[in-house]
Amino acid sequence: MTDTRLCIRLDLANGDRIGPGKIAVLEAIRNTGSISEAARHLGMSYRRAWMLVDQINETLREPAVSTRQGGQHGGPWTVLTPAGEQVIKLYHTIEEHTRASARQEFRAIDKLIRQSKRARS
Amino acid sequence: MTDTRLCIRLDLANGDRIGPGKIAVLEAIRNTGSISEAARHLGMSYRRAWMLVDQINETLREPAVSTRQGGQHGGPWTVLTPAGEQVIKLYHTIEEHTRASARQEFRAIDKLIRQSKRARS
Repeated sequence: MTDTRLCIRLDLANGDRIGPGKIAVLEAIRNTGSISEAARHLGMSYRRAWMLVDQINETLREPAVSTRQGGQHGGPWTVLTPAGEQVIKLYHTIEEHTRASARQEFRAIDKLIRQSKRARS
Repeated sequence: MTDTRLCIRLDLANGDRIGPGKIAVLEAIRNTGSISEAARHLGMSYRRAWMLVDQINETLREPAVSTRQGGQHGGPWTVLTPAGEQVIKLYHTIEEHTRASARQEFRAIDKLIRQSKRARS
C-alpha cells in the first residue's frame, strides 16, 4: 500500500474551482451546523470560511448551504442543500476513482522519492 | 464531453508535494534547456522556478534535473534526468486515469454548476 495521498482540484468550465479547501468547509458545516464553528474546527478565520461558502454558492446553480431557524440554542443554523451534498459526494468519488485506477503509478512514485527528509547542509 | 478540468497534487509519504507548478517547471526546462528561460516562459521569477526545482530535487532519491556544459552559446544548460522524466510521465498518467475513470462524475458536476458567471449585485 502506498503512502502517497492524492489531492484533486476541479477547474470548472465557468472558470471557478472546487478543491480541498471548499470541500472541507462544506463538510465542517455539515458536522457543526454553523459557518463560524466550521471555521474554528478548520483553524481558519470566519471571513475565509464565509468567502469559500460564498464562492461555492456562486459556482453552483443552487446554493450549497442554506440557513434555517431553530438551531441548538434557538438561533439560526446552517445546513447543506442537496446540491452541497452532491458536490461533496462527487468530489470524493473522483478521488476514489483516481486512487483505484492509479495504484501502479503511486507505487512507482513511492520508489522515486526519498522516504525521509534529507538534512540540508 | 465535459469542460471541467482536473488538477492533481500528490501529497507524498515524506511530507513533500508534487503538483502542477513543479511539473510545469520541469516541462519548461525540458523545452528550453534553462531554468531562467523556463521561468520566463511560465511568467514566474527565476527565484521561484529555482526553488521549485530545488524542492523536487530534494524530494526525489535522484535529482530531477542536471546541468551540463555545452549549451547553445557554449554555456551550461539544464536537462531532465531519467527521474525527472519519469515523474512527469507518472503525473500525467495519473491525470489521464482520473479523467477516464471519472467521466460520469465530471458530467454530473457540469450539471450542478452555472455555465457562466452571474453578475454580482
